[in-house]
Amino acid sequence: MAETVTLDLARADDLVRAALQASRVSPENAACVAAALVAAERDGQKGHGLSRVPSYAAQTRSGKVDGFAVAAAERVAPALVRVDARDGFAFPALALAVEEVAALAEELGIAAAAVHRSHHLGQATYHVERLAARGLLGLMFGNSPKAIAPWGGRDGVFGTNPIAMAAPRGEGPPIVVDTSLARVARGKIMAAAQAGETIPDDWALDAEGRPTTDPEAALLGTVIPIGDAKGVALALLVEVLSASLTGANHGFEASSFFTAEGDPPGVGHLVIALKPGPLSGGAFAERLDALAAAVEGQESARLPGSRRHALRAKADAEGLTVPAKLVAEIEALSRK
Amino acid sequence: MAETVTLDLARADDLVRAALQASRVSPENAACVAAALVAAERDGQKGHGLSRVPSYAAQTRSGKVDGFAVAAAERVAPALVRVDARDGFAFPALALAVEEVAALAEELGIAAAAVHRSHHLGQATYHVERLAARGLLGLMFGNSPKAIAPWGGRDGVFGTNPIAMAAPRGEGPPIVVDTSLARVARGKIMAAAQAGETIPDDWALDAEGRPTTDPEAALLGTVIPIGDAKGVALALLVEVLSASLTGANHGFEASSFFTAEGDPPGVGHLVIALKPGPLSGGAFAERLDALAAAVEGQESARLPGSRRHALRAKADAEGLTVPAKLVAEIEALSRK
Repeated sequence: MAETVTLDLARADDLVRAALQASRVSPENAACVAAALVAAERDGQKGHGLSRVPSYAAQTRSGKVDGFAVAAAERVAPALVRVDARDGFAFPALALAVEEVAALAEELGIAAAAVHRSHHLGQATYHVERLAARGLLGLMFGNSPKAIAPWGGRDGVFGTNPIAMAAPRGEGPPIVVDTSLARVARGKIMAAAQAGETIPDDWALDAEGRPTTDPEAALLGTVIPIGDAKGVALALLVEVLSASLTGANHGFEASSFFTAEGDPPGVGHLVIALKPGPLSGGAFAERLDALAAAVEGQESARLPGSRRHALRAKADAEGLTVPAKLVAEIEALSRK
Repeated sequence: MAETVTLDLARADDLVRAALQASRVSPENAACVAAALVAAERDGQKGHGLSRVPSYAAQTRSGKVDGFAVAAAERVAPALVRVDARDGFAFPALALAVEEVAALAEELGIAAAAVHRSHHLGQATYHVERLAARGLLGLMFGNSPKAIAPWGGRDGVFGTNPIAMAAPRGEGPPIVVDTSLARVARGKIMAAAQAGETIPDDWALDAEGRPTTDPEAALLGTVIPIGDAKGVALALLVEVLSASLTGANHGFEASSFFTAEGDPPGVGHLVIALKPGPLSGGAFAERLDALAAAVEGQESARLPGSRRHALRAKADAEGLTVPAKLVAEIEALSRK
């Protein structure tokens, strides 16, 4: 095991903000991004947590991401908002999108925000939970750089394309679903490549569309979606909702979320908020409790998110355990 | 092969309507149901087509389904409609839901209709295509009797739970995604049971949660979802959207769509319509064409629905090929 250090949440937030502010990011945007990355780290979603700071900083330093961008919202129909992330980070744009759809859904019952010219959305849970915290059901779709090939094809077209939902409950945390459509996160393939290890042959295909155990070959090819043709169909659905419908770049048009070179990725997100009370005839809270009870009444069955809640509680009690090398790298950024 | 007969679409429609009208179904509802079943048959979706007529008729004859129900819509927020299917067939309620959300989305940009006290929704494509025909993006979620166990559990809680989307295109048919979250349709397991054949061991689990090749044991257990934990999470997402959020019965609370006994299933559907023009800043048509071109530009890659379109064209040219035994059964119903 690599050497680790323990950071409390406030200290982690300070470190990330300082690193970003020293990397051509406004204080407001640095605070917004830091909050999201620390929240993901707290939930054990390390692929969307502090590990992103060095590549984020490299992208603002190179100008691929505009760290000073101020996202702008335009109400394009009574219940629709278009949010231009202006080639900045996704988090300020999504914070604005969440504010706007929450206000409109409160008034109209449902509303949608389409975000374009955006970037890595991080842990989708983070955004939909904010809607649930206001008593709204939050739905979210996002695309990402090409990773999944169309059915019958071999070149990546769609991203791994998360779908997320948070359903508010009167008592306790919301029920959250947050899943990408890749069988295995691309980050795991990257990690295997860095460690010089092989990968199982059902994770990815090489550039010729053949199953591969070589992570380097996999990174040149595509990842295998869940559910074969059905998973590919769902990846297409998310691509249409998050990119075609928002006027954003599709997966096959988007640059990497990791490297500092090239044009901004310009991906999109769609956020929808719904008011559960009227839609369910007042039955929503009882219905959701009944569903949760049917799951939790089965021995060893569980709702998604139970591992995340446990990790969140552990982080709150004990702080975050982060590789020492990563912490040093983040600290060094604030001195550069 | 069983003996088949060829029916043109109008003749199939007449047969189904007559069988239903002789089975305690109003002429209006019979016409609405017949149109949906014939459309599914035309698309090659035989599991949602004419094969349903005998069990539908048995359910209206027993009173499990109210063939005279008149669905009622209530506008519960400016952009939300609640539709009570009144324990009738799903199709009249969904036709009403589609009308209502289309009108509201045209005005407000997005709208949702929640249908409760409903039944088998048939081919989801049918409903979302109607929204696309009006230039709207249609999204739909539906639940069905319990078939999928929660992650870690062994008793069915969620239905197979279709997700569907139709995205309108200026030229040609919409891009349609319509997929359930079961790896294999339960109808295929029923067919194997009727034929006395075994099934592959990755289709279903028995009542103890073990993989089984015995279709009878599978029908007492659960079906395997696509994508393991991710597929189960998506089944939960659809269950929340289509049942908890609409105030309907969940999969574990719903009676069979096939048998004539018991209470009405009382399942739910959620229909959402969005106006693509404003949301995409006018880019939607160009964006969708670019996405389709990226898929279709790859040798042997295809968009979902290509097989359906081919079957639809074939049915229009040559009529429907239907088992002679089923046609005789449908004809006999109109004389009973």
